[in-house]
Amino acid sequence: MLKVWGFSELKPDQKIIEEEIFDIVKKNYRQFWYTPIETPGVERNEVLTAKWGGEVWNQILGVYWLAQWASDLKKYSLHFDLTVPFARYVLDYRGELTFPFKRSQIQKVWRWERQQRGRSREFYQADIDVIWEELEWKDYLFYDSEVINIWYKTYLEIFEKFNLNLKIKININNKKIISGFIGALGLWEKFTEISIVIDNKEKISAEEFENKLIEVCRDNSWIISTEELVQKIIDFTNFEANYENIDKLVNMVGNADLQSLQELEKWISELKTVLKNAYLLWIDKENIIINLWIIRGLDYYTGTIFETFIEWDRKLWSIASGGRYEDFTKHLDKKTKFSGVGFSMWITRFEDYLFEKMDMEKQAKTTSEYLIINFEQTIEESLKLYNNLSKTGKKVEFFPESDKLKKQFRYADNKGIKYCILLWEWELEKWVYTMKNMETGESEEISL
Amino acid sequence: MLKVWGFSELKPDQKIIEEEIFDIVKKNYRQFWYTPIETPGVERNEVLTAKWGGEVWNQILGVYWLAQWASDLKKYSLHFDLTVPFARYVLDYRGELTFPFKRSQIQKVWRWERQQRGRSREFYQADIDVIWEELEWKDYLFYDSEVINIWYKTYLEIFEKFNLNLKIKININNKKIISGFIGALGLWEKFTEISIVIDNKEKISAEEFENKLIEVCRDNSWIISTEELVQKIIDFTNFEANYENIDKLVNMVGNADLQSLQELEKWISELKTVLKNAYLLWIDKENIIINLWIIRGLDYYTGTIFETFIEWDRKLWSIASGGRYEDFTKHLDKKTKFSGVGFSMWITRFEDYLFEKMDMEKQAKTTSEYLIINFEQTIEESLKLYNNLSKTGKKVEFFPESDKLKKQFRYADNKGIKYCILLWEWELEKWVYTMKNMETGESEEISL
Repeated sequence: MLKVWGFSELKPDQKIIEEEIFDIVKKNYRQFWYTPIETPGVERNEVLTAKWGGEVWNQILGVYWLAQWASDLKKYSLHFDLTVPFARYVLDYRGELTFPFKRSQIQKVWRWERQQRGRSREFYQADIDVIWEELEWKDYLFYDSEVINIWYKTYLEIFEKFNLNLKIKININNKKIISGFIGALGLWEKFTEISIVIDNKEKISAEEFENKLIEVCRDNSWIISTEELVQKIIDFTNFEANYENIDKLVNMVGNADLQSLQELEKWISELKTVLKNAYLLWIDKENIIINLWIIRGLDYYTGTIFETFIEWDRKLWSIASGGRYEDFTKHLDKKTKFSGVGFSMWITRFEDYLFEKMDMEKQAKTTSEYLIINFEQTIEESLKLYNNLSKTGKKVEFFPESDKLKKQFRYADNKGIKYCILLWEWELEKWVYTMKNMETGESEEISL
Repeated sequence: MLKVWGFSELKPDQKIIEEEIFDIVKKNYRQFWYTPIETPGVERNEVLTAKWGGEVWNQILGVYWLAQWASDLKKYSLHFDLTVPFARYVLDYRGELTFPFKRSQIQKVWRWERQQRGRSREFYQADIDVIWEELEWKDYLFYDSEVINIWYKTYLEIFEKFNLNLKIKININNKKIISGFIGALGLWEKFTEISIVIDNKEKISAEEFENKLIEVCRDNSWIISTEELVQKIIDFTNFEANYENIDKLVNMVGNADLQSLQELEKWISELKTVLKNAYLLWIDKENIIINLWIIRGLDYYTGTIFETFIEWDRKLWSIASGGRYEDFTKHLDKKTKFSGVGFSMWITRFEDYLFEKMDMEKQAKTTSEYLIINFEQTIEESLKLYNNLSKTGKKVEFFPESDKLKKQFRYADNKGIKYCILLWEWELEKWVYTMKNMETGESEEISL
């Protein structure tokens, strides 16, 4: 993909592919009644900054604010995602919406980024979310499975459409499982520190890893030894969880207070319910993996989280991520309580990958198949022929000027148009037109 | 249409209609090989301001510039149209493009506007243009007819789709005819002043009009009297031109040097060629009117110009305008010479009108027709039924929680879902499901 000053730009072949992608996305979002909305490209800064506040927000987020001679400076900024605008939207129209409210939104968002592959300063997100008011507490856990299912189905169709030999693996987790496990070990206060160590696991040796954990956990007054605790954490990080074995996590805690264990059991059973419904809906077991360690970067979410990566140049790139969140309008209005679940597809990033991988030559060309040659003497009859061929669905173009034949043929050649159609006076007399194959040079007469 | 701080916002029913409009637009643009491109939402200021320069550009244009902590202030702005970005695009990729190059572009643009009906600070334009290098001078007049034809066909389909009882009248002119006429009268130096008077014609009495013209033309050294000259101008402004009678304009000049008359003849014949080809392509004569006075506000164009208005609250609103332009990249690169012809459809303005006029109630609803009730005991079978119905194309939704039946029914009621489907244990035993009509209350058993 071309980047103009870090903003992406699409040429005809690419834009046609993008439209094909959006057609698939829209079809799937609609099929499950996630109705489309569109919000402005800009939001008031007080909305965009509500979660962070203070002066540093635009540094953190890389937001572009707008300035205009006639308006207050810095009153609006381009939105950096579609979730914050949606939160504002829900509050603005809450009286008119029926909850649970399912919406989809496909729009560009803008973020300040260094210029590099896989990142763009302007990119398309395709989001769906379902949200509800927490007037009476309901889990609506079914929706977690539904959105994963839509996501899976959508990417599957896109991969097939462009003959990408890619398997979709959805990484799924429930954020509460790891905190529940650490909590059940009695190490809740050390949670952040332990997370940082575990985050580095892949970069250090097993020995270093153990030593760092011991260091972090040492100063404790628990019943079992530090070494024992650390061993449990190591076992946890090595545990390859799946639907059948994930209950074992509870046994791995060992002795703990009943309440902590019940909490952990609850989060595990939540994840299993989501998985079970997903299997029932569409997704094969092999396409969804429990990954107890996808947490980072998804700080927005509070329960189920899911992410899909593609490998590109030995690096993993997320092409979609989502999850469940609680109380997502609280920064804009303390009195409301809305929760939901949803995801974003990173369309522009996926296209970055796609345009590099796919054989653009083999894709649908943006040119016609037939060029009708323009002769001044027979322009009326040629235009009639053009109209007739065009109405029967032929991919036909009309040369705009009764120019030298050589020049008209050159135009066809340059654009890769396969046939030129000639209707000159002597053809008219015979009541035929001539179709010239530009590749072979052969001509054929066809009756008018 | 809703306006959030003057920027438009679409609710589900409206966004679905917008997508239907874009489907029609894209289909027609593609049919004539105007291939889609997409440029960033922003351009560098030096590109946007090239035509105007100086300090005042953002006041004139109402542009929003972007500011960002990490970048130079005021380096980029949101584009205010799609023509300037396209000029930059043509220069950037000229080596790769085959000319004449036909492109379409459907994107949002941003302009500072006071908040009012019919105007929005953010709106969609749907443009097509064909451009060519003026290495050897070619008129490519055919394209003027082609783009008018596409425009006509597109709006016709849109009007039909939404049952709008509107007739499309395309106002067409060639800007050179009026200047040619005034020039042939020998009044070229007075052209601007005369135009201003004529512009006010509708607002003043016939007597005042004549007096003002006399005032402007008096100080001359021509052969015929001022009164005679003024009478010719009055005759011109009263002349209702059409394809058959427009040649009379030449006679209306009277005595003049041969070259001036030949020039005027040429522009008239240019307009007639465009009309004739348009008739040959698609458009009925009654749908296209010569309007010798559409000039204002279209200062960009140099030859053929065309515009379509709708009447709304006794005011005429342009819903599309276009024309032919020469040398449209000269502000960005003096060495190039590109000319072209194209138009913009003002989609957001048209929607403003449409959403007010159309009966939204009668339009496609954004909800499903069937709601499958969620029973905890039979969730597996219910989900299977949901999958099966959904795969056969039924508009079906699944309630996300095994909640009180009353609440599930209420959700269907609120969303206007017509049928609820129940599959509880006793239904399973009988191997049926119950379909309850929410309007009549009647139930029916259907075999699984």
